Amino acid sequence: MASGKELCEGVEWRIRVVDGSSEVLVPPTGLARKVWLRTKGLISGLGMKVRMFLKQAWDMGANDPRKVIHCIKVGLALTIVSLVYFMRPLYDGVGGNAMWAIMTVVVVFEPTVGATLYKCLNRVCATCLAGFLAVGVHWIASQSGDRFEPFVVGASIFILASIATFSRFIPSVKSMFDYGAMIFILTFSIVAISGYRVDKLFDLAHQRISTIIIGTSLCILVIMLVCPIWSGQELHSLTVRNMDKLSDSLDGCVRQYFTNSNGEDDQKLQGYKCVLSSKASEESMANFARWEPSHGRFNFRHPWKQYLKIGASMRSCAYCIEALNSCINSENQAAESIKKHLSTSCLKVSSSSSSAIKELAESVKKMNKSPTIDLLVEEMNSALEELHNDLKSLSHLLNPSTTAENQISATGLVHFMEIIPVVTLASILIEISVRIEALVGSVEELVKESEMKDKIVAKEEKPEGTMKALQR
Amino acid sequence: MASGKELCEGVEWRIRVVDGSSEVLVPPTGLARKVWLRTKGLISGLGMKVRMFLKQAWDMGANDPRKVIHCIKVGLALTIVSLVYFMRPLYDGVGGNAMWAIMTVVVVFEPTVGATLYKCLNRVCATCLAGFLAVGVHWIASQSGDRFEPFVVGASIFILASIATFSRFIPSVKSMFDYGAMIFILTFSIVAISGYRVDKLFDLAHQRISTIIIGTSLCILVIMLVCPIWSGQELHSLTVRNMDKLSDSLDGCVRQYFTNSNGEDDQKLQGYKCVLSSKASEESMANFARWEPSHGRFNFRHPWKQYLKIGASMRSCAYCIEALNSCINSENQAAESIKKHLSTSCLKVSSSSSSAIKELAESVKKMNKSPTIDLLVEEMNSALEELHNDLKSLSHLLNPSTTAENQISATGLVHFMEIIPVVTLASILIEISVRIEALVGSVEELVKESEMKDKIVAKEEKPEGTMKALQR
Repeated sequence: MASGKELCEGVEWRIRVVDGSSEVLVPPTGLARKVWLRTKGLISGLGMKVRMFLKQAWDMGANDPRKVIHCIKVGLALTIVSLVYFMRPLYDGVGGNAMWAIMTVVVVFEPTVGATLYKCLNRVCATCLAGFLAVGVHWIASQSGDRFEPFVVGASIFILASIATFSRFIPSVKSMFDYGAMIFILTFSIVAISGYRVDKLFDLAHQRISTIIIGTSLCILVIMLVCPIWSGQELHSLTVRNMDKLSDSLDGCVRQYFTNSNGEDDQKLQGYKCVLSSKASEESMANFARWEPSHGRFNFRHPWKQYLKIGASMRSCAYCIEALNSCINSENQAAESIKKHLSTSCLKVSSSSSSAIKELAESVKKMNKSPTIDLLVEEMNSALEELHNDLKSLSHLLNPSTTAENQISATGLVHFMEIIPVVTLASILIEISVRIEALVGSVEELVKESEMKDKIVAKEEKPEGTMKALQR
Repeated sequence: MASGKELCEGVEWRIRVVDGSSEVLVPPTGLARKVWLRTKGLISGLGMKVRMFLKQAWDMGANDPRKVIHCIKVGLALTIVSLVYFMRPLYDGVGGNAMWAIMTVVVVFEPTVGATLYKCLNRVCATCLAGFLAVGVHWIASQSGDRFEPFVVGASIFILASIATFSRFIPSVKSMFDYGAMIFILTFSIVAISGYRVDKLFDLAHQRISTIIIGTSLCILVIMLVCPIWSGQELHSLTVRNMDKLSDSLDGCVRQYFTNSNGEDDQKLQGYKCVLSSKASEESMANFARWEPSHGRFNFRHPWKQYLKIGASMRSCAYCIEALNSCINSENQAAESIKKHLSTSCLKVSSSSSSAIKELAESVKKMNKSPTIDLLVEEMNSALEELHNDLKSLSHLLNPSTTAENQISATGLVHFMEIIPVVTLASILIEISVRIEALVGSVEELVKESEMKDKIVAKEEKPEGTMKALQR
């Protein structure tokens, strides 16, 4: 039994070590040799993995240099905050608690301005609130005598931590103050309980707040001054990009079906899948964008939530494109004659809808109402009308009383089953165009709201006047 | 102009303060009154909001008591870790750095066991690694003389922080070690730079590691012993629940269409939308479940990734149900006669597919291959065959040469346009059944893999023997 097992292992090795195949057929003779071969295999496998990993990392950096810039920014911010240690007056000023400044930089520095601001503001506000509260609780505890002090402090920590943790589950709190609630618990616990050991509690609270302010201000400066990446801008570009992808997929799928060409770029056809999977990132970006001050063409309080509605409209189109795709790849092949009969109008519908989406993308990009969108929607509707008529003309075949003198009957009998895929495709196309009209509505709403906000901001800024002019 | 504005404001107030309507029609006379009314409005508005917020919170707690339990667990863990402060020997043992233990509890305590373990293990490993590295760098820096020390330390922080930040972008690192990379930067920076001011650097590193170990062990104990919530179990139940929802939606939609009943529960019909939106939560649960030890019926290394595949299969069905729904709500109404013609077979397909999904849900729930699933798939296929035949029998109408002696022609002429919605619905149903077969495949794979893992675990545990028996 044991020798059999050994033999098995030998065979296994033969597979691993290809370069020594002539020797390996001989069963292994010594333990040293076994160990050597196994180690060699392990090392080469590990080397391969490391090489793959490094290549992946390199490609990622090359594809998106902003990620590399972010890393350099983190390094920069940390190196600057280290100066607090190297400069004696600064270090003494924060009573040796300089590490909180470093901690702040590490935990609040995020890739986008919005995410960093969200964390900074949450951290500062929560720390201040918790600090004051903790000093108050400590005072109450100290009044209640040495015996009861630990109990008062312990109970207050238990109650406040539980409540703050519970608040993190509430959606409205979670989206705005999740991080703040955590920092509140942290600071409150640390300051309240330190009162038991540290004599100068007020100094501790003060030091914690000032180090955190040093850290957050530095982060805000670095993130906003060195190649800033704005969540709002990212969300905006993602929306535009997704619209373009949607448009390309729609047009590509229908064209591939009717022209039987396999030349279409497969990546282009699958673009709608990005739309399907971008819900989570859209939501987090919209969430962070709310914290960003006015930047580029976006004011503070730009209607970011409207982007989520546009995203939802796009996804509802993408669901239909998914169904369309399944028609195209269906086993039930349509008759060529029927395809020909409907191809002109279907292609017209798909190209006009996809150019409507393209125009919407342009409209979002420039953030103004497109002058041609109404025209394009009309064009889409007239193409739909044409498709309706073409579908109706198929009905001549259905109704035995009218003489069937059309293309289809001329080419011979057509089985009903051969019509089904094309008819399904056509009716999904019709549904897609209905959903595109909803998309048009949500894009127009975004443009309108954004113009309204612009006006409000312009009005508010009139008295001050110069700020806006400076930004431009 | 000014008085006009005042009047406007007066009217606005009338709307707000309903209880004093007889007085409000008189324009406001004094500033004090204005301020009073406005304050009253503000307070009542605020009170309303607070009441709404509290109601929302209460409902959330009542619907899912486990959230409340989690909050109590956090309070408990924090109160226990506070004992480190209250007990003099423990406090002195960690050199006054007890706050790190508190910090650890606050930041690593997550609602599920998997998420907590992920953070705990990442925190401990990253702290150890970074601590040793930082002590090494400090030694090198101290060798290079007083002049160069800050530069060596600063450069090492810059380089390591940048690299660690970059690694957080790499998907494979992000899913396993995102938190660890952050803690690595944190600990390395703090320990390396403290070397410049703190004399006993090794003590600092040692204290940080021991406080973190105290905090994490406490968290692990509390999270696993007090009403544990397992990510794996959650993922499992979510998958089963989503399957049930999918099945209900499918059956409900088709039945509503053919029986014209509006009695169907709307929430049941919309259940497929949960499937569409649960991708992100499935992914994070699967990610955390990997860290969990064997619990309940799940071994360590249970094939959690397979759940993601099942989720994807379910979503592909849900896309089609979305398209189906749009057919049902389409303006283009189908002729009743056609509906009647196809209703029996369509209902059969939908009910057999939905019972196949239900059976799959049962199979996942019990984690064994269902004995009846093959039968149900066969039933679904025979229903499909019937639907095919019914569709074909519509073709008698298409082909003028055969005498049309069927139900439909008996009721009179049917426009082709009136056939389209039903035909589209039928072909989407056919597509759904194809996708259900893919779902069957992925569920079977899950069951197979899980049985395989069970066997491996059983084999590994044979020598020890008792562990498994104890767990059961």
